[in-house]
Amino acid sequence: MTVNTEVVLPNHTNHVGNLFGGKLMQWVDITAAIAAQRHCGRVVVTAAINHVSFDKPIKQNSVVTLEAKVSRAFTSSMEVFVDVFVENPSTGERTKCNEAILTFVAIDQNGSPLHVPELIPETELEQKRFEGALRRRQLSLVIAGRMKAHDATELKALFITD
Amino acid sequence: MTVNTEVVLPNHTNHVGNLFGGKLMQWVDITAAIAAQRHCGRVVVTAAINHVSFDKPIKQNSVVTLEAKVSRAFTSSMEVFVDVFVENPSTGERTKCNEAILTFVAIDQNGSPLHVPELIPETELEQKRFEGALRRRQLSLVIAGRMKAHDATELKALFITD
Amino acid sequence: MTVNTEVVLPNHTNHVGNLFGGKLMQWVDITAAIAAQRHCGRVVVTAAINHVSFDKPIKQNSVVTLEAKVSRAFTSSMEVFVDVFVENPSTGERTKCNEAILTFVAIDQNGSPLHVPELIPETELEQKRFEGALRRRQLSLVIAGRMKAHDATELKALFITD
Amino acid sequence: MTVNTEVVLPNHTNHVGNLFGGKLMQWVDITAAIAAQRHCGRVVVTAAINHVSFDKPIKQNSVVTLEAKVSRAFTSSMEVFVDVFVENPSTGERTKCNEAILTFVAIDQNGSPLHVPELIPETELEQKRFEGALRRRQLSLVIAGRMKAHDATELKALFITD
Amino acid sequence: MTVNTEVVLPNHTNHVGNLFGGKLMQWVDITAAIAAQRHCGRVVVTAAINHVSFDKPIKQNSVVTLEAKVSRAFTSSMEVFVDVFVENPSTGERTKCNEAILTFVAIDQNGSPLHVPELIPETELEQKRFEGALRRRQLSLVIAGRMKAHDATELKALFITD
Amino acid sequence: MTVNTEVVLPNHTNHVGNLFGGKLMQWVDITAAIAAQRHCGRVVVTAAINHVSFDKPIKQNSVVTLEAKVSRAFTSSMEVFVDVFVENPSTGERTKCNEAILTFVAIDQNGSPLHVPELIPETELEQKRFEGALRRRQLSLVIAGRMKAHDATELKALFITD
Repeated sequence: MTVNTEVVLPNHTNHVGNLFGGKLMQWVDITAAIAAQRHCGRVVVTAAINHVSFDKPIKQNSVVTLEAKVSRAFTSSMEVFVDVFVENPSTGERTKCNEAILTFVAIDQNGSPLHVPELIPETELEQKRFEGALRRRQLSLVIAGRMKAHDATELKALFITD
Repeated sequence: MTVNTEVVLPNHTNHVGNLFGGKLMQWVDITAAIAAQRHCGRVVVTAAINHVSFDKPIKQNSVVTLEAKVSRAFTSSMEVFVDVFVENPSTGERTKCNEAILTFVAIDQNGSPLHVPELIPETELEQKRFEGALRRRQLSLVIAGRMKAHDATELKALFITD
Repeated sequence: MTVNTEVVLPNHTNHVGNLFGGKLMQWVDITAAIAAQRHCGRVVVTAAINHVSFDKPIKQNSVVTLEAKVSRAFTSSMEVFVDVFVENPSTGERTKCNEAILTFVAIDQNGSPLHVPELIPETELEQKRFEGALRRRQLSLVIAGRMKAHDATELKALFITD
Repeated sequence: MTVNTEVVLPNHTNHVGNLFGGKLMQWVDITAAIAAQRHCGRVVVTAAINHVSFDKPIKQNSVVTLEAKVSRAFTSSMEVFVDVFVENPSTGERTKCNEAILTFVAIDQNGSPLHVPELIPETELEQKRFEGALRRRQLSLVIAGRMKAHDATELKALFITD
Repeated sequence: MTVNTEVVLPNHTNHVGNLFGGKLMQWVDITAAIAAQRHCGRVVVTAAINHVSFDKPIKQNSVVTLEAKVSRAFTSSMEVFVDVFVENPSTGERTKCNEAILTFVAIDQNGSPLHVPELIPETELEQKRFEGALRRRQLSLVIAGRMKAHDATELKALFITD
Repeated sequence: MTVNTEVVLPNHTNHVGNLFGGKLMQWVDITAAIAAQRHCGRVVVTAAINHVSFDKPIKQNSVVTLEAKVSRAFTSSMEVFVDVFVENPSTGERTKCNEAILTFVAIDQNGSPLHVPELIPETELEQKRFEGALRRRQLSLVIAGRMKAHDATELKALFITD
């Protein structure tokens, strides 16, 4: 797991005194990229931000922990989850504030995609995210117009069998 | 339409000399926030990044244009599209490199959500994005576990009728 | 016209809570450089800042719009005007806060100046700025000691015929 | 004299590897503001950038020295000169690269202008700049449309008696 | 242990393409401050940088891991060690590049020092650093002229018994 | 002497509204590096931060002056002192807030160390710092485990003869 611990300084805040969304995305992108790079041992570039939720505003002076982990590897791309926590300074108790899902591609020196090693999920959460990754990938392809909805078998099943 | 024109300087680049994903996200977040704020005349905060694709790497020195527009307004939230273009310095020809979809919420001084005015789509593209917004919203709620897949009627239709 | 839309975040402010002059100049310089580059399709470098007025302080959280346009092209240099506006968040009404005039030079790979295309003014304002450009250029040369005041015919006329 | 010594790092450069104009203006603005503040012992804000010349490009790794000095005090405003030098790293020899002229206004807590102490020029250069300040001020007022050219007696004299 | 993982981007580098010392110190200071804050559950401020070694230059694109841990708590101050590692991107092997020792003080809302909880060292390394902390503290006091060398009993012993 | 004058803007502050330690260290590192580079006429890199005290917090809006000077030259390294002052804006009176001691090494294009010219101390303060430099250097070597305490003759003397 790739861990990044930051503190929200005045120059990271937006107009209502909370962590500015664009700054959080910088931290998320860097932490996730390192996780992907560690998985495949190669240079990686961001291919997509699949989803980021901003559930709770993060106040100035908060200690923020970002934890990134590859959730599934495809041929040359990797899906990465970043969980963002804020901790209570007195008790140390952590609250989850954001969840981000990104996709990275491993590239060689000419920018061509490279094969990446498979990921074997272990814990229950890892298993759940691993399985969801395929649906999210089909969704990205459908949104991008590179796959037809009726070919997205994993996605389809979600709505029909539910 | 909210327009932002930037040039990719050395301190915006990643390790392969292209625009760093986290920096692009800063520009995207600011431009989209201004578009949402102009629509509702209120302070807004980022609620979600629904999707960002990084289709083509953007080289150092490129002139980048970000164009943001509210695509649909819900009770207190607004979906915003940001189209990112790079232009050929000699011919001025523009190429689309990224598309980002974000959601903002209008808030009052206590951080409580406020009603926002409706958006009436005009062009064909606006109409298409307006319609897709509902499906994307249901998808966000399903991903966040706040709506069951079989209640996401708009989404479901996509897979069944296709 | 090259447009840049920014929002004044806490890390852009000076000690009295307004937009810091040096930060505004960064935005002005980038926006003006892009306008010059678009006019000539070449790499450009800043040759001079001819004049910038800071008429009204710009408060934190303001939405700032910079609009840059080449006002006249000389052999290898271009004069660029940047008009800076702040908008009222509720009404959208714009107020002009600053006006900046800069000069750029188009260069080749060795840094040698290149010929740039002529500019044909169209609107009344463009015509007025086009005509003033020659006087401002003479003024720059006089200030820099590269032209004698009595050779600055355009400038001289201003004071004698007035 | 207010002195600022900086080194041009990679993140200060533009697309041709030289010091970025907007970054230099940040350093100029800060150094000049401190000079003005030291003269009057009050908070100051930038009122105008009267002129900046970019005579020689400044390369990455250069040691840059900025020297700022109030050249003349008017009722509540001060004109400040900033001379920018680059030094040869082996010999220490200095070359002047830029000259910037700015105007600052001293303000109280409500933003109202305050009287500032007079400046008595001493050296020959100080005397020359002191005298020129009045002409530059008239010029600013003429450009801003707040003085008619034929009332700008100091400026007029320059062109007629020359 | 407080962990911070960063990647050296172009805008973090100095004139020889390595991580700029000042930038590393920013990361070190933040990571150490969070470690101290987590130990005492209070706001902390940097009191001293006791020592930082720059043993091996860190190249652009390197993945850098900072690990911070309180080594000893005194009445209201805490000594923190930060170990800085670079990892080989292909093998994941880590090399230690820097070691930094800082001192923080816990303060209340008026800036007055607060008591902090004791630290109980556990591992052998923690024990060694805990013991050295007293000598380093005496050294700081001697350097600052707040303790006479012959009163620094722990330090003295080091040289006499050796 | 190398002088750097800065003003503490909002984006330089920490969570209690004072100058952030990491930002001060950036200014210290740059100013000291320029002083070392001027002494030897060569590219230099930071080898160690020997000691930095943060005696008095520096408030937002303060004018900060950093004065750096080489205190002693060894074979290829130089010790540099940086004295940091804050000035009272009304009276101009200066108060010393921090003292930093750093070590730099001169390098050639391959990163190999180069001989640097000797430094001849002149004033009483320079003489005192010159003499202390040898003890501080032995201390660094002892801390780094590259010299045994009983070989650190200068250091030993300090404790025994005191």
